[in-house]
Amino acid sequence: MSQKEVNGSSHRGKVLTLETMNQNVRQVEYAVRGPMVLRAVQIEEELKKGVKKPFTEVIKANVGDAHAMGQKPITFIRQVLALCAYPALLEDDKFPEDAKLRARRILDGCGGQSIGAYSASQGIECIRKDVASYIEKRDGGIPSNHENIYLSTGASDAIVTMLKLLICGEGRTRTGVMISIPQYPLYSAALTELQGVQINYYLDEDKCWGLDVGELRRSLTAAREHCNPRALCIINPGNPTGQVQSRQCIEDVIRFAKEEGLLLMADEVYQDNVYAEGCVFHSFKKVLFEMGPEFSSVVELVSFHSTSKCYMGECGFRGGYMEVVNLDPEVKAQLTKLVSVRLCSPVSGQALMDVVVNPPQPGEPSYATFTKERAAVLADLAEKAKLTEESFNNVPGFHCNPVQGAMYTFPRITIPQKAIDQAKAAGQAPDQMYCMKLLETTGICLVPGSGFGQREGTFHFRMTILPPKEKLKYVLEKIAEFNAQFLQDYS
Amino acid sequence: MSQKEVNGSSHRGKVLTLETMNQNVRQVEYAVRGPMVLRAVQIEEELKKGVKKPFTEVIKANVGDAHAMGQKPITFIRQVLALCAYPALLEDDKFPEDAKLRARRILDGCGGQSIGAYSASQGIECIRKDVASYIEKRDGGIPSNHENIYLSTGASDAIVTMLKLLICGEGRTRTGVMISIPQYPLYSAALTELQGVQINYYLDEDKCWGLDVGELRRSLTAAREHCNPRALCIINPGNPTGQVQSRQCIEDVIRFAKEEGLLLMADEVYQDNVYAEGCVFHSFKKVLFEMGPEFSSVVELVSFHSTSKCYMGECGFRGGYMEVVNLDPEVKAQLTKLVSVRLCSPVSGQALMDVVVNPPQPGEPSYATFTKERAAVLADLAEKAKLTEESFNNVPGFHCNPVQGAMYTFPRITIPQKAIDQAKAAGQAPDQMYCMKLLETTGICLVPGSGFGQREGTFHFRMTILPPKEKLKYVLEKIAEFNAQFLQDYS
Repeated sequence: MSQKEVNGSSHRGKVLTLETMNQNVRQVEYAVRGPMVLRAVQIEEELKKGVKKPFTEVIKANVGDAHAMGQKPITFIRQVLALCAYPALLEDDKFPEDAKLRARRILDGCGGQSIGAYSASQGIECIRKDVASYIEKRDGGIPSNHENIYLSTGASDAIVTMLKLLICGEGRTRTGVMISIPQYPLYSAALTELQGVQINYYLDEDKCWGLDVGELRRSLTAAREHCNPRALCIINPGNPTGQVQSRQCIEDVIRFAKEEGLLLMADEVYQDNVYAEGCVFHSFKKVLFEMGPEFSSVVELVSFHSTSKCYMGECGFRGGYMEVVNLDPEVKAQLTKLVSVRLCSPVSGQALMDVVVNPPQPGEPSYATFTKERAAVLADLAEKAKLTEESFNNVPGFHCNPVQGAMYTFPRITIPQKAIDQAKAAGQAPDQMYCMKLLETTGICLVPGSGFGQREGTFHFRMTILPPKEKLKYVLEKIAEFNAQFLQDYS
Repeated sequence: MSQKEVNGSSHRGKVLTLETMNQNVRQVEYAVRGPMVLRAVQIEEELKKGVKKPFTEVIKANVGDAHAMGQKPITFIRQVLALCAYPALLEDDKFPEDAKLRARRILDGCGGQSIGAYSASQGIECIRKDVASYIEKRDGGIPSNHENIYLSTGASDAIVTMLKLLICGEGRTRTGVMISIPQYPLYSAALTELQGVQINYYLDEDKCWGLDVGELRRSLTAAREHCNPRALCIINPGNPTGQVQSRQCIEDVIRFAKEEGLLLMADEVYQDNVYAEGCVFHSFKKVLFEMGPEFSSVVELVSFHSTSKCYMGECGFRGGYMEVVNLDPEVKAQLTKLVSVRLCSPVSGQALMDVVVNPPQPGEPSYATFTKERAAVLADLAEKAKLTEESFNNVPGFHCNPVQGAMYTFPRITIPQKAIDQAKAAGQAPDQMYCMKLLETTGICLVPGSGFGQREGTFHFRMTILPPKEKLKYVLEKIAEFNAQFLQDYS
């Protein structure tokens, strides 16, 4: 037997196959762009080719992609970006002075005054300063240091970077990371790829997807039997669940993290998306500092933000930042080194983040338009959140919590035993079968609850509330019709 | 002892410290943005504060960042980007029709006609089609399928993604990856992080940094004693070495990869940067297909390109692509799934890549200006490549190969024994000490050869040839002066 055959790399076969590839990558699942979406794209192709369907269009309600759903970009943001891309426009009197001011400030922070230059690995300094000012203002004056800000390629990139720093050890000492169930599957995907131990804590669907510290404790105690839990991830406002955490709840979580020696990762990308009466967004940073130095000088907290959500919905630019609090300075140096290997995050995304944290101020020429556009987007979302909740709660077999915030609804649905049995026989999750049938029947693409995690025996789906109101109404009607037929077919 | 203390997570200490972080990340080194650059940034701060230095400015010749060095963006590229960012400009008659045509085409490929929408995970379809056409044209008609194109966040992202798919196994079966020495340290950094086995093969400095298949074989045979070599990485034109591979050399490498069952990773981001008389860029894809079906239907090849280099130098946009050839369809599906977890690469970078692969054509209004701007950048680089080589070869103790291509020179320098001893006593690499003293004396920031790898006992540095000609002349003079003094001080 030759050396080549010993090494299994004979030229007769492929080097890379399902069997010889990294099995951690193979095990990764990411339902938001999983089999449902692959089928949706196929159906779109079929429609283009003239294949007859009981619908004329695929509606991708699987993902929080505001512009794809027809939301218009905020004028001021795009004016600044156009000026940064093509500075000759700085001489054009069709652009307002405040947009030019922002663009000049960003360009002054760039090497050679070009957004085509690499930035510092942590991000452009003046933008990090603007982010720090934004955080200070948002949090009622609690200081933020731009040296603790890292600009990133969307929030996803920053979250994965933090997990990379954290995850190590073998067997019982392997790092465990607590994530909510239901969760946003970036977390489970990253943990699978990095071979961290996923520790599930369940949100309480009957209490409006509330987080209960007793459940955190139960989950942590169980996990300590087999791994080394080191971090606790929170998504607030919640994805896919749409809950907005109370100040009290956040305090409880912080106290728990301190007692148990956990690093907190606060995913706050929906911080402007709060709709429900009486709900307010509280940042973990603010609550941490209001709890006094015995907490604020101790608890390691990393919080994440993004240009992709809120009122701007600029997903394609992959802008984001994280703020690190109480991180060991030597670890911070390691973090900076790690991000430097990829050189920098996209500078156009950094520029966009700058406009988000430094929008037009009263007295500036763009203030009125900007404020109007932002308010219109958020009011429209609030209305659609309400509409969706009410509509789904009228569907027999559905239970839908209020969409207090974020961009999704995650209703519990009833799947008859006969359908469950049929799905199981086909090796499918029952809610996956439900969503697939819905897609084939109506063209509406949702994500089955099994892609986010849910209590055994319950079934859900995630739907974004982003479609324009008339289309959303159509979607809600079609789902109700489909559900009635489904219940009848499997009764 | 409480459970908490057992797990080492008592609230008295930090969760994340140098000792408790992921040690693979801790071991990562990336010299291009390493200690030299950190010190350079400090010196800049000191200069700003009025600290007196023997120079007035820090010159960062450590990185291939064209715009930061004063190169102007290509007008047509930025016009298209501005139109994409702010489509109201499509009504502006100051923009040429061909730029509008490109922008409309890109916007038509975006969800909601906005570059703020997420794209498909693999990238916008019409852009992937343009990339495939570009490759076909470049390679004399050899077909390219857009389904094999993945748009990425710069080439770095795509390279790391491929390494993630590849690296697995334990102990002697752990995946080994062959990289040239000297290498671009993204490769060593990614291998360290992913715990792949780095297999060094040495380029022949005495043969103009040529690649010799005998050396590949030596390196592979040695590696097979302790790991499972599965991939061979090539950088052509070379970084940091600047060599351009002959067609014959590429054929030899392909033949070797086929015989030995290795997947080929061809880093071709400098494909337009070829300056030396008689040198031509040959893509691995083209040579592979010209070698006939016994090769072209077998060898797994992934080639990488970027918006950051060539004549455009648009590093900040983080645009790039890879083309995969002969990849197992099941592995391709896994690749698509893996990239989908990060949703998509920056759409503005995708748009920029589109302009690069689909530039103005003869007869279009922007053709003359575009062609002139591109030619001027490349002619200027060619002149600076020549100037640098000639100048360094006049410095006593320097030996500098021709800069046939890419953007760097990597001269061998002489470090007297006394200096070597002093560096070693201080726990420093001798060329690191050399570069640090150069920085402190002249403000010129280079990267020591030890950051790229070099034969034991030889010393080098990498310097980009990007500074404007007058500044480059100044840099070359200052380095010569410094070197003379250094040799004298340590003689």
